[in-house]
Amino acid sequence: MIITSLQNAKVKQWMRYHHRSEREKDQCFLVEGEHLVQEAYKAGLVLYTIQKIGSPLLFPDCMVYEVSDAILKKIRMCTSGSDIMALCKYKESSSSIGEKVIMLDDVQDPGNVGTIIRTALSFGYHSVILSDHSVDLYNEKLIRSTQGAFFHMNVLRMDITSMLLTLKQQQYHIYATSLQNAKPLSSISKMEKYVIIFGNEGKGIKDEILALSDTHVKIEMQTFESLNVAVAAGICMYYLQ
Amino acid sequence: MIITSLQNAKVKQWMRYHHRSEREKDQCFLVEGEHLVQEAYKAGLVLYTIQKIGSPLLFPDCMVYEVSDAILKKIRMCTSGSDIMALCKYKESSSSIGEKVIMLDDVQDPGNVGTIIRTALSFGYHSVILSDHSVDLYNEKLIRSTQGAFFHMNVLRMDITSMLLTLKQQQYHIYATSLQNAKPLSSISKMEKYVIIFGNEGKGIKDEILALSDTHVKIEMQTFESLNVAVAAGICMYYLQ
Repeated sequence: MIITSLQNAKVKQWMRYHHRSEREKDQCFLVEGEHLVQEAYKAGLVLYTIQKIGSPLLFPDCMVYEVSDAILKKIRMCTSGSDIMALCKYKESSSSIGEKVIMLDDVQDPGNVGTIIRTALSFGYHSVILSDHSVDLYNEKLIRSTQGAFFHMNVLRMDITSMLLTLKQQQYHIYATSLQNAKPLSSISKMEKYVIIFGNEGKGIKDEILALSDTHVKIEMQTFESLNVAVAAGICMYYLQ
Repeated sequence: MIITSLQNAKVKQWMRYHHRSEREKDQCFLVEGEHLVQEAYKAGLVLYTIQKIGSPLLFPDCMVYEVSDAILKKIRMCTSGSDIMALCKYKESSSSIGEKVIMLDDVQDPGNVGTIIRTALSFGYHSVILSDHSVDLYNEKLIRSTQGAFFHMNVLRMDITSMLLTLKQQQYHIYATSLQNAKPLSSISKMEKYVIIFGNEGKGIKDEILALSDTHVKIEMQTFESLNVAVAAGICMYYLQ
């Protein structure tokens, strides 16, 4: 199907998906750029692609909307200049979270959460659990910064306090990163079944969550004592993998 | 001095500093937010502060321009909503680069370079050397993502190929991150005097630079094999510190 009018109802529908509330209502979201569309396709999430008129059909078995440059420019979320987008349905998450789990307590920056999901997949972690007040999982910048890992990682969103109580009953070891009363990372013994918790960029992990953890971990630093949460997460995930 | 007109010459001057070429011409740049202004002040770089009319004077020995809300809103570079900014002079860099050095080969994203500078300071590295084609050091997002580390780290910008030849003569060990023909990070022996090189987000390290390095290092991954460069740098810096 070819669309050239900026007033077309489909264009209006796609524009709505720039807003979280509209995505949630319809349970779908846009992705942008060949690499991300490919990863979404592999994960079976693509409802249809949206391409520049006359551009090659990369996914012959997908429905396609061919659109003008002006429409693509209007509906794109970043300035990538890519000629392909896709409308995807929301992912389903699995309640089987596996043995190596990352938990994020109100991490707010979409780039940080996306980078943590990317790192978690690279190091063989099985699930990433976001607290209720973390950033929206379908934020465009979050998805982009996962570099496609978003489509292959089991990500859940829930009340993490009650989840931690359940996980402790199931003999998960709970590591929490903290600057106070914490053991140096290099002295930590590795467990088979564990959760590592990282906290909000400004406030760290909430006290009630820290109180539920078994081991407080500190990354040894020399001077400035300040690490970006995605970098801290990368170092802990690498060390404990 | 109080300024309330958006047409004032000072306002026009500050707006110019949103552009790299204008910053370079005058060798000065704006910073934004109490924390960053404080760190710039500690480093002796503040020429004067720019504050909201009537807001408390945090740096009594600094010259102050008090400005209207409308002016602040106009000259701010991000949406922080902060009431204080400062005009700072460019940093000087030292040619004594110390024993633990980070080198970046055309890293382009300002958030990545800023995060790497922040991590390098935290882990006690002495200098960060940027290649000629890396992102502008005075990019507002770069400075913000250093969380102030920018003002305390020795950062240089130069032709890294010729710099590497000099450093090799001076017995620095050169580590380069690479996915090919590389040893796993955990098998690497630590040196006293060394450089670690990280590459461009898309292309990695250039072949001519790889050819000058002593050890190729690979971070062991399990599945996805994709790490953000600031995360990879954090892991290597932690491990080799």
